[in-house]
Amino acid sequence: MNKFEEKTITTESIYSGKVVHLQIDEVLLPNGKKSKREIVKHPGAVGVVAITEEQKILLVRQFRKALEKTILEIPAGKLEPGEDPATCAIRELEEETGYCAMHVRPIASFYTSPGFADELLYVYQAEQLTLGQQHTDDDEFVEVVSLTLDECFASIQKGEICDAKTVLAIYHWQLLK
Amino acid sequence: MNKFEEKTITTESIYSGKVVHLQIDEVLLPNGKKSKREIVKHPGAVGVVAITEEQKILLVRQFRKALEKTILEIPAGKLEPGEDPATCAIRELEEETGYCAMHVRPIASFYTSPGFADELLYVYQAEQLTLGQQHTDDDEFVEVVSLTLDECFASIQKGEICDAKTVLAIYHWQLLK
Repeated sequence: MNKFEEKTITTESIYSGKVVHLQIDEVLLPNGKKSKREIVKHPGAVGVVAITEEQKILLVRQFRKALEKTILEIPAGKLEPGEDPATCAIRELEEETGYCAMHVRPIASFYTSPGFADELLYVYQAEQLTLGQQHTDDDEFVEVVSLTLDECFASIQKGEICDAKTVLAIYHWQLLK
Repeated sequence: MNKFEEKTITTESIYSGKVVHLQIDEVLLPNGKKSKREIVKHPGAVGVVAITEEQKILLVRQFRKALEKTILEIPAGKLEPGEDPATCAIRELEEETGYCAMHVRPIASFYTSPGFADELLYVYQAEQLTLGQQHTDDDEFVEVVSLTLDECFASIQKGEICDAKTVLAIYHWQLLK
C-alpha cells in the first residue's frame, strides 16, 4: 500500500444526476485516524483547439449557470458513456461551431479539480477544418466567435475567457508560435 | 437580460459539506423551455508557483481520494471564509512545503469546471523564498518534491503531474523562460 493512500471504510451515495454524482467516503488516513471525503463523480469531458486558416481560434460564447455569467470557451462537452474522447472532440466541435475536423490530435489531458472531483478533461487540436452546419443540443445556446491570439489575451484580461481548459489552450497555442 | 441567460425558477439544496455544496436549479432557457442544472458550489482555491534558487519548482505529492491515486501538484488549498487569496497562497505554501514567500504576485485565475462548478482558482507566483518548517493539516499527508522544467515535462508524460492548475503553472513557467 502506498504510504499516502486513504482506504475507503464506507461510501454513501448522496445524489445521482444527469452530469454529476455526489458521494461521501469515510476513509482511513495513513495515521490510522478517520476522515470524510466529498467526491463528485463526472463522466469526463473534451475541449477542442481549432485554429482557422486566418490564424484565429474558434470559441463559443455561452451562459454558465454555475457562474451566473456568459463566458468564452473552446468548444467542449462531456463524454457520452463509452465514447472515445477523440470521437467526442470531433462531435462537439461540429455540434457547437459547425466546423468538421478531419483529424484531432491529443495535446493535453488533466483533472480539473482533483481535490473534490474525478473529472478528466482531454484537450485535442483539430486539423483540416471544413465548415458545415452548427446543430447544438436542445438546452444549449451558443454563439461562435473567432479570435486572434492577441484578442484572446485581451479577453483573458477582461475576464471573458476565464476557464481552465481555455486558458490552457491559449497558453498551448502561444507556445507553438 | 443577456440573450443566453438562464433564469432560476427554483433552487433545491441537496447537500452541504465541508468542501462542496450541491444544488439543483430549475431554469428557464432562452427559448422559453425549462431545464435543470446541477451546480457544485465551492469556496474557491489558490495554487502557488514557487521556483527555488536552483530553478526548480516546488511540488507536493499527495493522495487524491477522488482520483484514487497519488499525484504531484503545485502547493494549493481552498480559501477560508473571507480569506484574501494572496494571504491564502502564502499560508498554503508555508503549511505544505515549509517555504515562506515574502511576496506573491497573481499570474492567472480561472474557473476549473464551469459546466457544473463555481470553483475559482487563483494562481500566484511566490517571490523571495526562505525555508522554514512544514506544518500540514491533521488529515493532510504530503511530500515535498522539487523538479526542473524538463523533469516536469517528464512527469506530465508519466501522468504523475495531471491536474489543471499544475499543468497550467508549468506552461506559464515555460513561457517565462
